[in-house]
Amino acid sequence: MAVASARFPFGFSVHSNRKVDISISEFPLNVDVSRISLCPSSLSSTASKDSVDRICARPNIDDFSWEKLPTPLLDAIDNPLCLKNLSLKELKQLAREIRLELSLMSLDERISFEASLAVVELTIGIHHVFHAPVDKILWDVGDQTYAHKILTGRRPLMKTVRQKNGLSGFTSRSESEYDAFSAGHGCNSISAGLGMAVARDLKGRRERVVAVISNWTTMAGQVYEAMGNAGYLDSDMIVILNDCRHSLHPKVEEGPRASINALSGTLSRIQSSKSFRRFREVAKGVTKRIGGSMHELAAKVDEYARGMMGPLGSTLFEELGLYYIGPVDGHNIEELICVLKQVASLDSMGPVLIHVITGENHVMEYNESNIADGQQDGSSNFDSFHQASQRRTYSDCLAETLVMEAEKDKDIVLVHAGILTEPSLQLFRQKMPEKYFNVGMAEQHAVTFASGLACGGLKPFCMIPSSFLQRAYDQVIHDVDQQKIPVRFVITSAGLVGSDGPLHCGAFDITFMSCLPNMIVMAPSDEVELANMVATASHVNDRPICFRYPRGALVSSNYTACNGVPLEIGKGRVIVGGKDVALLGYGSMVQNCLNAYVLLSKLGIEVTVADARFCKPLDIDLLRQLCENHSFLITVEEGSIGGFGSHVAQFFALDGQLDGKIKWRPIVLPDCYIEHASPSEQLDQAGLTGHHIAATALSLLGRPREALHFMIP
Amino acid sequence: MAVASARFPFGFSVHSNRKVDISISEFPLNVDVSRISLCPSSLSSTASKDSVDRICARPNIDDFSWEKLPTPLLDAIDNPLCLKNLSLKELKQLAREIRLELSLMSLDERISFEASLAVVELTIGIHHVFHAPVDKILWDVGDQTYAHKILTGRRPLMKTVRQKNGLSGFTSRSESEYDAFSAGHGCNSISAGLGMAVARDLKGRRERVVAVISNWTTMAGQVYEAMGNAGYLDSDMIVILNDCRHSLHPKVEEGPRASINALSGTLSRIQSSKSFRRFREVAKGVTKRIGGSMHELAAKVDEYARGMMGPLGSTLFEELGLYYIGPVDGHNIEELICVLKQVASLDSMGPVLIHVITGENHVMEYNESNIADGQQDGSSNFDSFHQASQRRTYSDCLAETLVMEAEKDKDIVLVHAGILTEPSLQLFRQKMPEKYFNVGMAEQHAVTFASGLACGGLKPFCMIPSSFLQRAYDQVIHDVDQQKIPVRFVITSAGLVGSDGPLHCGAFDITFMSCLPNMIVMAPSDEVELANMVATASHVNDRPICFRYPRGALVSSNYTACNGVPLEIGKGRVIVGGKDVALLGYGSMVQNCLNAYVLLSKLGIEVTVADARFCKPLDIDLLRQLCENHSFLITVEEGSIGGFGSHVAQFFALDGQLDGKIKWRPIVLPDCYIEHASPSEQLDQAGLTGHHIAATALSLLGRPREALHFMIP
Repeated sequence: MAVASARFPFGFSVHSNRKVDISISEFPLNVDVSRISLCPSSLSSTASKDSVDRICARPNIDDFSWEKLPTPLLDAIDNPLCLKNLSLKELKQLAREIRLELSLMSLDERISFEASLAVVELTIGIHHVFHAPVDKILWDVGDQTYAHKILTGRRPLMKTVRQKNGLSGFTSRSESEYDAFSAGHGCNSISAGLGMAVARDLKGRRERVVAVISNWTTMAGQVYEAMGNAGYLDSDMIVILNDCRHSLHPKVEEGPRASINALSGTLSRIQSSKSFRRFREVAKGVTKRIGGSMHELAAKVDEYARGMMGPLGSTLFEELGLYYIGPVDGHNIEELICVLKQVASLDSMGPVLIHVITGENHVMEYNESNIADGQQDGSSNFDSFHQASQRRTYSDCLAETLVMEAEKDKDIVLVHAGILTEPSLQLFRQKMPEKYFNVGMAEQHAVTFASGLACGGLKPFCMIPSSFLQRAYDQVIHDVDQQKIPVRFVITSAGLVGSDGPLHCGAFDITFMSCLPNMIVMAPSDEVELANMVATASHVNDRPICFRYPRGALVSSNYTACNGVPLEIGKGRVIVGGKDVALLGYGSMVQNCLNAYVLLSKLGIEVTVADARFCKPLDIDLLRQLCENHSFLITVEEGSIGGFGSHVAQFFALDGQLDGKIKWRPIVLPDCYIEHASPSEQLDQAGLTGHHIAATALSLLGRPREALHFMIP
Repeated sequence: MAVASARFPFGFSVHSNRKVDISISEFPLNVDVSRISLCPSSLSSTASKDSVDRICARPNIDDFSWEKLPTPLLDAIDNPLCLKNLSLKELKQLAREIRLELSLMSLDERISFEASLAVVELTIGIHHVFHAPVDKILWDVGDQTYAHKILTGRRPLMKTVRQKNGLSGFTSRSESEYDAFSAGHGCNSISAGLGMAVARDLKGRRERVVAVISNWTTMAGQVYEAMGNAGYLDSDMIVILNDCRHSLHPKVEEGPRASINALSGTLSRIQSSKSFRRFREVAKGVTKRIGGSMHELAAKVDEYARGMMGPLGSTLFEELGLYYIGPVDGHNIEELICVLKQVASLDSMGPVLIHVITGENHVMEYNESNIADGQQDGSSNFDSFHQASQRRTYSDCLAETLVMEAEKDKDIVLVHAGILTEPSLQLFRQKMPEKYFNVGMAEQHAVTFASGLACGGLKPFCMIPSSFLQRAYDQVIHDVDQQKIPVRFVITSAGLVGSDGPLHCGAFDITFMSCLPNMIVMAPSDEVELANMVATASHVNDRPICFRYPRGALVSSNYTACNGVPLEIGKGRVIVGGKDVALLGYGSMVQNCLNAYVLLSKLGIEVTVADARFCKPLDIDLLRQLCENHSFLITVEEGSIGGFGSHVAQFFALDGQLDGKIKWRPIVLPDCYIEHASPSEQLDQAGLTGHHIAATALSLLGRPREALHFMIP
């Protein structure tokens, strides 16, 4: 008899063929979890490798079923208005129901609701006190908004999260009027909220603006720019810092260095140096603020007093111009509502920051012995099942190759910008911790820091997802490319990213990197080429270089990690020789060109497939050769207009090749944002599949009917 | 008899035909300033309008001469090593000599050395204590580095600053080994310095790293990202905050709001709440720090004590992880050197921040009565002379038109990111101060803030120079374009920027903006079109829109500001009809196409000149029409590859126009950074003049000899 088990986020586990007591207070339930089918998929949506699994190997949704637990209060909530008349006791019960629903959905949907579980009380408190959608609620972090989505009319659609035509994994203005602003990159909510607050004042309206930031996002520079400006403009707005210690300390045994940056240490100190302030005390602070705005002297005294007496760290926000209130227990609905009501009731108080602590021990009330039992019984099965289904991704391949390179070359270091360490990078981190730098959500700093490392004689690889590299574009230009400093950019999540949708889609990097004069721009067509490009980058010491690879690309099972061979800069290769039409692929699209080759071969069409390897410098010998031997050339890339195809066209035009010598057709990402869906659905929508490429070739060859055939599945 | 007069930066004035006493302490001099020829040019290099004058109307360097004042100490300094053995008295004297030299050069070179004058003592102190180039000195702000340039072997070349083949206006790694990092955009020095410090530690070296930041640049988010990471990594490095109150309070009468953001208010409070701490007291703090790293308890006590007793605001840096020392009088060489020596002598102290106050009253010792006299006598003359030579720029035109639009449409507001308010924008600011938002050096925030304003129902124009918009690229994509929010981007300093060189060159905006799916991208070909585009932008309410214009473009003298007429989106225009070759210009390059038209007409060639107006959406009717009537088409833009020309090529390819119907040649900025020079020299180097365009046309028409003729001036 197979025993399967699964873990709830925050360590809560159930396993099948067993009865587990899940007590939700007033409604103790006896759940038959043998009905809960289980799946060895990822439970974390923040770690990209897990996302990869989720995207590439996502099983059919119908594989799963679970018995609906009674949620009488939640069932009665159609929109946040329904929360207004609930008693404190009912609000607490509602929190339990939402928590249960999210926990079970985590199992069912294989999406982590961990971050949202931590803010259930906060979300309820906000919607109880404020009047969305008139009042504007802005969230920095998409992962924290699932309770918000449930309370704002999207509960019936929660099963569709991150699926085609389903709910977005982030907040989205187009999805709901309750999402005041779209967010997926973190750190924008104070800026946008301040804009809304200023517009409100100029328009003479009176709605409230609430921006919920996170200790994750306080690493990003924009938050400080926004706080400084909010303090200066002094518009009424409420910033809630959701400070979830857990997230910044993924492993306690790693000690204080796990906190990534110094501020998070400060936040921890605040938490440890003072217990939560009772709400009456907090309210007193709020009242002082009103006095303060009228009586400058009183305010001054208050400020000094708070500077001396208040928790360490509060002054940071005060100095940036926000009035600090807290820390407040983020799981105590009573206190939360009291503080929020106090703050909401005040006029002309300027920007305030409410520091709310949420934590890992408040997710669910459960029967501990059962859990421990469950883990002992089932975890190894679960893990082995999980591991068996895991296939290595390009990120794994990169980490393995980079470790090998770094073992040969002691100067190689790795700079990584992101909230969490990518699972693949743990290998590098474990092997050479002193050469691994995760700077957190601070892409601008990451790039210039890498440049400084290079100036100091090291060989930095700087690993940033394509859509987040946008945030460091000026640093790439000003601090690296203009100074011709050899930073090696590893651009991950390049191209479409499946369930993460347009917010994390890496559509523009080929375009915005290849226009830079000193940058070498390349992309591997497979895992062997990836290893070669790591070696190439490591050998280029006189200028910056970058390469991109897609999220979710799986390494073929027979590939064994080995040292790469440095490529000659600006040299592509012909993979298959033909004569009727040439397909020139860039990066992962070479594989799709090969798919088209197979399809076209069946029709007797002789196709050349070439792997450009380099967008910059272009292999002009290869380009001329393709022009000489073919009448038709199709360039294919998983990127926006202005990238590889444009560079080819520019060369062709100046070389006279477009004056009737070759008929060129570019295939690029379409000029729109492609919504979340499965990777194959997205690729199909983008027109980048082998079928699309083959159809384009057939059209060029004057065989439109057959082309049409390829376009209809 | 004409009486000319000029002001020294910081209010010191001399005027000609008069003897002024300039006492430089031990060497009182009687200078015959009648020998100083004067020029009505700008003295400020930070305000872009002044830069415009400097670039466009810069008189010949030989027009000026000044009697060399004796600078015996400075004359003996070839490199910073020479400072090592100077006595305190001599260092003070050296400061006076440098200040005199810079002040006179300001006159002569028409470049402001104001920012450098404020840091003369600090620069001397740094070079006296540290051992550049082994020790790495990094500056955030180029304007502050002229004393540094003088002391590091570049004194003989100071006359060539910002001229072709001359010294850069910024720090430059390629210019001097004493420039540890290149800087022009501000705020990168802590990040780069931290990288160098970490590399040093990994490499087992022992050099010091000193990053000099400024209160200007503490508005930028990257500084906080870097400080947070520096605090976490705890590498030894020294950050010097050069806090020049003057800069943040350009006009005292504007009150506290002139401080732009809240932090600058905090810095001011530090200054006012405590007088400078005596160096012994500061040194005591340093000593405590050593104890702190060994005895945690002592450190804790120290920290609490400092939090209570220290000046307000110091904790901000402490909370970000830097040990705060200061404030220190930036004009007291003795104290500066003592503090720097103390800090430099310590091992393993982690990152420290030395808060140095520099100010406006320490620039030069002068005879006050003479100055007052001089101002009374000469200032009006100077001003009238100055005004007479001023011509209106596109920025003036923009401000005038925007004011007119804003008077009609009450929802229009203006968001501006930059250190100072552009002089042209003062008009808007004065007319409607409540609708004018200068957020300081915080481009990321500026863009998202503008997006929030638009969500709140206003019509924000967001004005950012092209090269600084790079810093907000992710916000443009994520917070504006993806959400299709109608923010109107006014991209200034687009294209080449003359003496500011590559660091401020706006080469990439057409490329990086026009790949965005929802963005309307346009560029005016003259001032009338600029007014029309302001009107167009104001009328587009369903999506973002942007337009760019070059720095230094002058409005024709017969142009009178008037309301613009909204253009039809995606419609270009034919300006001159011909048949032999079509020139399709984008933005300001339409003028150069018209120049080429004149040149080619003389050769009997009939040229069509069209103004594309829109890069996105393209006017495909116009494009097809040009293909139908011509065999040759040349696109011309002052931008990098991947922009307008690439969009035209993409359309042509998909429309089959490149299959032998039209011969297309793109003219774009060359694939290199163009160093500082005059605008005409740069344009010539870039191959974008009318002559170049005409030559390209002649080559296409098979007349290469005549083409060659055009290329040789």
